[in-house]
Amino acid sequence: LDSEYERLPAALQKNLTPQYDFNCAIIDATHDVVCAYKPNMAFYEARGDQGMSELKMTMEYLQEYYPDIFTICDAKRADIGSTNRGYVREIFDWFGFDAITLHPYLGRDALQPFLEREDKTSIILCRTSNPGSDEFQELSVKRSHEQHSLPLWQYVAQQVAEDWDTAHNCMLVVGATYPESLRQVRAVVGDMPLLIPGIGAQGGDLAETLTAGLTDQKDGLVINSSRNIIFSAPSGDEDFAAATHRAATDLHQRISSLRTV
Amino acid sequence: LDSEYERLPAALQKNLTPQYDFNCAIIDATHDVVCAYKPNMAFYEARGDQGMSELKMTMEYLQEYYPDIFTICDAKRADIGSTNRGYVREIFDWFGFDAITLHPYLGRDALQPFLEREDKTSIILCRTSNPGSDEFQELSVKRSHEQHSLPLWQYVAQQVAEDWDTAHNCMLVVGATYPESLRQVRAVVGDMPLLIPGIGAQGGDLAETLTAGLTDQKDGLVINSSRNIIFSAPSGDEDFAAATHRAATDLHQRISSLRTV
Repeated sequence: LDSEYERLPAALQKNLTPQYDFNCAIIDATHDVVCAYKPNMAFYEARGDQGMSELKMTMEYLQEYYPDIFTICDAKRADIGSTNRGYVREIFDWFGFDAITLHPYLGRDALQPFLEREDKTSIILCRTSNPGSDEFQELSVKRSHEQHSLPLWQYVAQQVAEDWDTAHNCMLVVGATYPESLRQVRAVVGDMPLLIPGIGAQGGDLAETLTAGLTDQKDGLVINSSRNIIFSAPSGDEDFAAATHRAATDLHQRISSLRTV
Repeated sequence: LDSEYERLPAALQKNLTPQYDFNCAIIDATHDVVCAYKPNMAFYEARGDQGMSELKMTMEYLQEYYPDIFTICDAKRADIGSTNRGYVREIFDWFGFDAITLHPYLGRDALQPFLEREDKTSIILCRTSNPGSDEFQELSVKRSHEQHSLPLWQYVAQQVAEDWDTAHNCMLVVGATYPESLRQVRAVVGDMPLLIPGIGAQGGDLAETLTAGLTDQKDGLVINSSRNIIFSAPSGDEDFAAATHRAATDLHQRISSLRTV
């Protein structure tokens, strides 16, 4: 639900609550073929308190009509310990999200207020899909007393799997643009579910992603495709809901057929 | 301006706009002894759209009465390239902040929408003040083709100074709890201004911090002390503005006298 105001159908842009109205139409058109909804906070915060209010209304709509669908707040947060409690209260309690995306840089102790919420899921950035993610994530790292070195993203995966995930409420973000990394992350984290951005617009290949990332039970991936689906209608086409339904169903079917190969 | 609702004076909590009213009183009591105001977004987002609206009102108050004081949005954001444009629009344009704090993990290419705003300042997390910041920041890293290794935080400082700061609009966050790191960051970044959390409640020593971090011109540090100042009045004391003025003036004088030693 990356419902960027500028990309909404022109007719909707004039509504009192354009992002909310758009989201309701998208949700009604896709609820039977998705495993999760993931609004990116940036597109709502861009409209200040009005955007926040429409995101809240969207969450209330989901809670009323589709309460079983997993909701991820793509907020990419992380602050020092006590400060995170503000975000915990906002995102888990006020909005009511099931999960949030988080930066690892500050370490586990800082993220404790998220991790200790055993009823919620913390999704840690590990290997991001952007072209420049190598700058730090691909650095070769080692602990001072160890000889063995590995890329930073792999070290993050290891720390989360071995040390952070005591309540089994962690996931990792691994970009579909790096299938080889995905394969290695899967080897490290066992059955931990992974959130996979980068399919579609960013060029990640679906078949390669599933081969690299599925668990032995052919499970464990949340495949994210947002703008390719919600903005699949040609510009000016007001029947965007039908186009969205087709795009979401198509991806759902491609995933289903590849899983059973 | 970490104006956590639960810690506001009881009388203010009943107001229609408690965080805004508190902030105005704090700003009036401290404007002559501060170099910057730095609200942490978490404490406003914790109250949903109402908190966002009171933060916006606070920024309008600052812009009207104290337009020359530097404003930092402590939001610790960072998303993939295009998505950041939502945050840029929100924080720089809608709120009107002069600066924002950012996570480095995604690399420079992702942060480009912030960096290319030459009229605004990007403040990158380098060595954070929390006790567990060693988990990743103290890892020994090297680029695959190099022999020389260094701690990740130092590598971040180097990248920002040598590669990101082409428009001279970058700063770094270095915790006062690590004065030796601060000394090394200063050696790497030349005259770049640094934002220093961790004085006060977190145990950072002011004299050590200034010795380690000041430039040759005895300048270049933004010393952050928030809760120690804004909540300096004894609980139940409604004359919090006077206590705040004393606490801010005291820190200002300590900094001034240490700078001239």
